[in-house]
Amino acid sequence: MERPLILVTNDDGIQAKGIREITVVAERYGDVAVVAPDGPRSAQSSALTLETPIRAVKVEEREGMVRYAVSGTPTDCVKLAVDKLITRRPALLISGINHGSNASINVIYSGTMGAAIEGCLHDIPSIGLSLWSHDKDADFSRCLPHFEEIIKKALAEPLPKGICLNVNAPRGDIKGVKVCRQADGRWANEYQQDSAPRPVPYYWLIGDFIYNTDGADGGYMPDQTALQEGYISVVPVHTDMTAYHVMGKIGGYESL
Amino acid sequence: MERPLILVTNDDGIQAKGIREITVVAERYGDVAVVAPDGPRSAQSSALTLETPIRAVKVEEREGMVRYAVSGTPTDCVKLAVDKLITRRPALLISGINHGSNASINVIYSGTMGAAIEGCLHDIPSIGLSLWSHDKDADFSRCLPHFEEIIKKALAEPLPKGICLNVNAPRGDIKGVKVCRQADGRWANEYQQDSAPRPVPYYWLIGDFIYNTDGADGGYMPDQTALQEGYISVVPVHTDMTAYHVMGKIGGYESL
Repeated sequence: MERPLILVTNDDGIQAKGIREITVVAERYGDVAVVAPDGPRSAQSSALTLETPIRAVKVEEREGMVRYAVSGTPTDCVKLAVDKLITRRPALLISGINHGSNASINVIYSGTMGAAIEGCLHDIPSIGLSLWSHDKDADFSRCLPHFEEIIKKALAEPLPKGICLNVNAPRGDIKGVKVCRQADGRWANEYQQDSAPRPVPYYWLIGDFIYNTDGADGGYMPDQTALQEGYISVVPVHTDMTAYHVMGKIGGYESL
Repeated sequence: MERPLILVTNDDGIQAKGIREITVVAERYGDVAVVAPDGPRSAQSSALTLETPIRAVKVEEREGMVRYAVSGTPTDCVKLAVDKLITRRPALLISGINHGSNASINVIYSGTMGAAIEGCLHDIPSIGLSLWSHDKDADFSRCLPHFEEIIKKALAEPLPKGICLNVNAPRGDIKGVKVCRQADGRWANEYQQDSAPRPVPYYWLIGDFIYNTDGADGGYMPDQTALQEGYISVVPVHTDMTAYHVMGKIGGYESL
């Protein structure tokens, strides 16, 4: 029987430790196509490359494995893989393992989750995997066994249509897995202003993350809380951004 | 009484016709700060500039009006405006008028909506305005009176917390305004492959948009349908991407 195809991508670039480690796991469960950016593309969200063409360089090919480095964003990687680079339908898309958490509102900026959302828009079961550590030599040994179980489950049981998973692992020991909601939070003090060595001021994005546990939660644990308590968080993320629950409140716009 | 401050941005760049026309309208209702990209940044979604610093050049300042051209993405513009460039809280953020529709799943890729979502994350009432025409000299005269009414309403009645509006106008005559859901759709045949004049193949993003009217709609008209029937579509968009309705279906992940 043909092995399933697993498409692997990320936003830290094809050389990052996180994608290399999860690729080894993915190979246990299927043929693997890695189609990932040729360098770091963090915080690219669902950005597309429109103004320039993109290139894909095949950097490895052997039985059951092909790897391409792409000059675009994570979302470009998924689109180009599906449209041009792979010849059969993936049974699963894995994006990650990201070096850094994509919990709370960071799902909105994340290139890792941009790729997972793109897979989902192509009706490919898609999961984004992240570790709450920006260390480029981060230790993935504690999260990998859990991520392997999540991969097995996602291959065995189809995710609901239009739903992908945002999975984040804590830094230290792992107590288990919690299905969570996206935590409310915001960034503050976002820019550091400088001017040396040139006289014109410039701004570097920095920022403090402020985490808010208020707000309607429907009884589900916020993902950031799960991480802080030592759990892996699994948030189902949907591609329909319509806020159905407020439709009634904005009906007045129809009279304009 | 102090006039409200209206923050205006876009993704087509500060010189685009759409932002210039809506700025004239905005000035009727408040002081205006335009903080927009210094060139085209279409399809930048909620991307952030991390690897380089960004600059903001003040290109105009007069009573009730300041304009900055920023070397970053639409989301960078909103963050930098709020954190560094403006000194009081905006009563409204307007992103647009985009040259091109952001209906259906294009909300996910849109830099126009990326900026509106960023405003919403800062608890600023935020609306993205788009016209279904990519023509750089597009005729905004038919949509502008409706957009003006929408601006007045958004200033008069606060939007629900965590909700921004994705507003799209059709090309021709306008029959009215419909509150809609995000239409289901997808892009296909996304890349054109070429190699001349170099031998290494490259890919340009092109694509055909395939619009799907199937799927659970909760009784609301899909935004793409509204556009095609000559209505302005207003979709409430939320920043919480949690798919609460499937929480029960993925509970099994907690046992991993």
